[in-house]
Amino acid sequence: MERAIVKTKRGESAGRLLMKLDQIGIRARIAKEEPEAILLAEGEIDETSIKTMPEVDQVTKVKLPFSLASREWHKKDSVVNIAPGISVGGGNVLIIAGPCAVEGKEQIVKTAQSVKRSGALALRGGAYKPRTNPYTFQGLGIEGLALLAEAKKISGLPIVTEIMTPEDIDFMLPHTDILQVGSRNMQNFSLLKALGKVDKPVLLKRGMMATIDEWLQAAEYIMAGGNFNVILCERGIRSFEKRTRNTLDLNAVPLVKSLSHLPVIVDPSHGTGKSELVPSMSLAALAAGADGLIVEVHPNPEEAVSDGDQSLDLEEFDKLMKSIKRLLSVMPEKTLEGSKCSVAA
Amino acid sequence: MERAIVKTKRGESAGRLLMKLDQIGIRARIAKEEPEAILLAEGEIDETSIKTMPEVDQVTKVKLPFSLASREWHKKDSVVNIAPGISVGGGNVLIIAGPCAVEGKEQIVKTAQSVKRSGALALRGGAYKPRTNPYTFQGLGIEGLALLAEAKKISGLPIVTEIMTPEDIDFMLPHTDILQVGSRNMQNFSLLKALGKVDKPVLLKRGMMATIDEWLQAAEYIMAGGNFNVILCERGIRSFEKRTRNTLDLNAVPLVKSLSHLPVIVDPSHGTGKSELVPSMSLAALAAGADGLIVEVHPNPEEAVSDGDQSLDLEEFDKLMKSIKRLLSVMPEKTLEGSKCSVAA
Amino acid sequence: MERAIVKTKRGESAGRLLMKLDQIGIRARIAKEEPEAILLAEGEIDETSIKTMPEVDQVTKVKLPFSLASREWHKKDSVVNIAPGISVGGGNVLIIAGPCAVEGKEQIVKTAQSVKRSGALALRGGAYKPRTNPYTFQGLGIEGLALLAEAKKISGLPIVTEIMTPEDIDFMLPHTDILQVGSRNMQNFSLLKALGKVDKPVLLKRGMMATIDEWLQAAEYIMAGGNFNVILCERGIRSFEKRTRNTLDLNAVPLVKSLSHLPVIVDPSHGTGKSELVPSMSLAALAAGADGLIVEVHPNPEEAVSDGDQSLDLEEFDKLMKSIKRLLSVMPEKTLEGSKCSVAA
Amino acid sequence: MERAIVKTKRGESAGRLLMKLDQIGIRARIAKEEPEAILLAEGEIDETSIKTMPEVDQVTKVKLPFSLASREWHKKDSVVNIAPGISVGGGNVLIIAGPCAVEGKEQIVKTAQSVKRSGALALRGGAYKPRTNPYTFQGLGIEGLALLAEAKKISGLPIVTEIMTPEDIDFMLPHTDILQVGSRNMQNFSLLKALGKVDKPVLLKRGMMATIDEWLQAAEYIMAGGNFNVILCERGIRSFEKRTRNTLDLNAVPLVKSLSHLPVIVDPSHGTGKSELVPSMSLAALAAGADGLIVEVHPNPEEAVSDGDQSLDLEEFDKLMKSIKRLLSVMPEKTLEGSKCSVAA
Repeated sequence: MERAIVKTKRGESAGRLLMKLDQIGIRARIAKEEPEAILLAEGEIDETSIKTMPEVDQVTKVKLPFSLASREWHKKDSVVNIAPGISVGGGNVLIIAGPCAVEGKEQIVKTAQSVKRSGALALRGGAYKPRTNPYTFQGLGIEGLALLAEAKKISGLPIVTEIMTPEDIDFMLPHTDILQVGSRNMQNFSLLKALGKVDKPVLLKRGMMATIDEWLQAAEYIMAGGNFNVILCERGIRSFEKRTRNTLDLNAVPLVKSLSHLPVIVDPSHGTGKSELVPSMSLAALAAGADGLIVEVHPNPEEAVSDGDQSLDLEEFDKLMKSIKRLLSVMPEKTLEGSKCSVAA
Repeated sequence: MERAIVKTKRGESAGRLLMKLDQIGIRARIAKEEPEAILLAEGEIDETSIKTMPEVDQVTKVKLPFSLASREWHKKDSVVNIAPGISVGGGNVLIIAGPCAVEGKEQIVKTAQSVKRSGALALRGGAYKPRTNPYTFQGLGIEGLALLAEAKKISGLPIVTEIMTPEDIDFMLPHTDILQVGSRNMQNFSLLKALGKVDKPVLLKRGMMATIDEWLQAAEYIMAGGNFNVILCERGIRSFEKRTRNTLDLNAVPLVKSLSHLPVIVDPSHGTGKSELVPSMSLAALAAGADGLIVEVHPNPEEAVSDGDQSLDLEEFDKLMKSIKRLLSVMPEKTLEGSKCSVAA
Repeated sequence: MERAIVKTKRGESAGRLLMKLDQIGIRARIAKEEPEAILLAEGEIDETSIKTMPEVDQVTKVKLPFSLASREWHKKDSVVNIAPGISVGGGNVLIIAGPCAVEGKEQIVKTAQSVKRSGALALRGGAYKPRTNPYTFQGLGIEGLALLAEAKKISGLPIVTEIMTPEDIDFMLPHTDILQVGSRNMQNFSLLKALGKVDKPVLLKRGMMATIDEWLQAAEYIMAGGNFNVILCERGIRSFEKRTRNTLDLNAVPLVKSLSHLPVIVDPSHGTGKSELVPSMSLAALAAGADGLIVEVHPNPEEAVSDGDQSLDLEEFDKLMKSIKRLLSVMPEKTLEGSKCSVAA
Repeated sequence: MERAIVKTKRGESAGRLLMKLDQIGIRARIAKEEPEAILLAEGEIDETSIKTMPEVDQVTKVKLPFSLASREWHKKDSVVNIAPGISVGGGNVLIIAGPCAVEGKEQIVKTAQSVKRSGALALRGGAYKPRTNPYTFQGLGIEGLALLAEAKKISGLPIVTEIMTPEDIDFMLPHTDILQVGSRNMQNFSLLKALGKVDKPVLLKRGMMATIDEWLQAAEYIMAGGNFNVILCERGIRSFEKRTRNTLDLNAVPLVKSLSHLPVIVDPSHGTGKSELVPSMSLAALAAGADGLIVEVHPNPEEAVSDGDQSLDLEEFDKLMKSIKRLLSVMPEKTLEGSKCSVAA
């Protein structure tokens, strides 16, 4: 059984092509219809004969189980647009910063303004928090979303926040620019399928014990539904080592970038669990080729409701941004959009 | 900050007690109201003075983060009732058998009849399957549920099937006797919260990367919602070993039974991934003190749509049941309900 | 490149056969010369033509990288003789008990006498201890060996003690019946090679992060040197779980027994790190098919210099032996040598 | 029980101080005698009174189990001297390159000359190889050492080679500048103790399953014997991920540097197992703060007897060195000794 990805010419009907393929014994499904249709075909694939069908622009045989996510099909880096002037992938570096959870107006607005000044391009903050224990703080919910909206209005930074269940998608969508899927939900297939129908970028964190192949197949679930705006995020895997919260697997960065065209960013905060290790691992991630970072920043880490141990304070983040700019100054293939990089910075 | 579980006398109002506790500075939440109310209290707990309140029957201080699930509070084994005459825990051994996925009428009915004859007490079969890859068989869905109903009618065996998302609970409830939460969903907190509101038993599989404490806190999510009918299922954890699909962690059986009053069963099929290891590990699980097993059985394992490598055929399962009965004959504290155990069996 | 194991007829010269094979382009090495020679041959193997050589008794092609240790070659269980009337494998169950370290005369003699009475067949005790920290107790050394000799004289139990470096072999040999290789030394290839030249049984513990294949290849190092008396010991692998010292991998028992003819015993003490889990996991190990156990027993676990948390006291061990005998009474294929098993015991 | 490290004044007798401490109930042991003596003291430590003893220069209480290796005692980075003009630690970056195993004269000499030209500061090459399988190439042995000597003579590069057993120390010493302890021997305590008596630098690779604390205590074994010239090497840990040979744990770099004063280098070849990931991970390691790299380089990786998949060819290594110099140009705290760094390089 062979598989291929078939791209139609613009304006051609995916449905008619589906039927034609069916007549020659090839089972296909439509992943996406606009601007051109993308079909996944399965059967005995004869590239040449499919290529001659008038609807078809391109046929690419694929072997990896994550077909749409693979570089076998899509050779060039994908660039995911976040907001006007802000994108990630293809050389565009995206730095996301902010607290683990939205705790109050002052906290989130102050953080937003400060990280923006330091050079961050997006604001993170959880309104719905997946917590190991049912009795701990579960996030401010709708109130948290409203505070994020306010922080966005004041700072201009696009918002990244976590979605935990398909039921929440509709009311969360207007309040967020990137929907984050947390580690524990990486294989919540109902959620992934629902996000395939959304037209906003999805930040897909790697499960803490997910192989690279499982992670890329989770991305494939979203893409198979038609949403190609997937950003991958390495956030550390679980190992036997006890001095760090997780083991940040930076091998994953160049490895995933060789297997997939999707942008890959790194979360050094969860990846280490210790704020004093975050700057070193942020630089290491970018040196390894990551397309960006998501960093926990809090105005008063020691008072944070959650994840205080791994949060930088505003000044530490500002210092980190300076080191990042210095590092990017010798990586000409990368740009930190919106702020010119130079050693002097 | 101390914590305690407070049990009311039968017929007393949980709401009034809540207010009284509040007046003495203790924050409480109601886990369950019937037949007696169970409250979780947090604050400076003075057991004696709470004990004297007329509504109160029992106050127990707890330290473990999984309070309701812990033996600190509930000393005796919990017994979960599945169907008339069938229960698990407190010495009652539950053997569940059946295919990974429902594939068709003949398959599921034939399996049900055969495993029933061999001594199984419940039938497993997936209608909605969580699959790593979006393009593989995802289960027969509603049709699968209908086939399970038919197999139940013919064999009399209660049904265990997997639930993947809160949205499915309402229509799945009438078709199942035990709702299974799969490994990948062990920390799908939206699903766990929704299952707390259901009055049927929940089979909670351990996440493949979950610590014992995370697993018991996942059970706590369900119990905190009021559903105390939780059955835990060890199904193997992920390790570096490549010759088995997972590493079955039987240490977890006596360990969890010392920490918690909930029944613990074992899945030797996923725990090994190889049918030839299933009989040995089934016996090992029971010898370690497990309250039951969930075993994949298929009339033609080599033709199974999924998990064929780890499925026993009908004859192998029959032979295993004979060994199980022989083993239980020297474990007088355990009963395989519905079938008397004897060495001769 | 094919590989085969060639066994000569008794009395035939291995050297001459080696040359003959060389003439037909087959490179061979002698693993063992007595009572019959065993050669490992590599090249283009034509079984029939080798079989016709007058020196040759048997030719068996092998594929697994652990050829001498594999069942591909040696179909029947190996039985390793420990002392007159005591052996392990092929249905003979060996229970080894004793303290982590020899601490003094009273401790080791009292333990020996007590575990012997309870039914143990060999005595363990460390004189040279591999310790994580250089400043902790490293064992009594020669004095410890002398105390073991005394305990053997009094109790009649054969001795199992750990060897840490090739240099110690000569003076340790007279004082021990089984040489134990610890987890940390499982791939100390210099030590393994040296033990291949010894004619006493070697107890080879699995490395705490060794795959089954690495473990069996470590056994192959010893066998390739001519010592076929290898006993494998599963003692728990390292995982992310923190409540147990290690994760006892009982999957390894039936798996290794299917791949190899060597006896496999289990160490539930290191495998759990908690004495309260030891009885359950001892029974589980035997139910899984293990050929024996090595259990830490100390007259006063709370005063033990090392591993007190995982040691049974004398009474707990006695109780465990009763459960073991009860379990073995329904496993007719197994015998606990030297003490007849019956439910009454 | 408290612990402290006591340093004598130059020229003072360690033996006399030992006795004096003993008189006030403090048990001490001499780690090192020259140029000043370093003692480890255990007991009820009164810093002030010990400080007043005329022999004593410095008293430092320590809590970590790796006392001599810790920054609690030794605040400044240790600098280990390798050869005239070549050292590692304290800002000096050491790049070691060369083949997994010495295979022949041309191979090793050609590699030495080429990596030297590219900017490497030391040559690696195994003469004694620890191999998982007893029947695979075990190294050229003495012949390999002679070839390394020749490569050193021609290139001027100091030699790094692996030592597998205490017995080999004497004849290997003249042929090597750094003695490497491999992962599998990290807890071969007999070997570590023997290396404590040697006066050449030891490169101590982290065990593939060793925690940070176990690794630093292995270093402590060497230091407790008097050899303070220990270089730590992170080389990847074992995880569940199958697409890479190991999971390179770069968290370990800043973490170990915060806990210990010893230099830490990184092996991206074993850490990934794939040559295409080596350049990215080399840069990541240095960005994370590593004091150097050890990289497998072979003139014809596809013909290498071992580890070909993870070896760079000469040209790839040259290209990597250019990237390294570019990166170090924005890390003013680091120097690549012997070759000035500049972006132009």
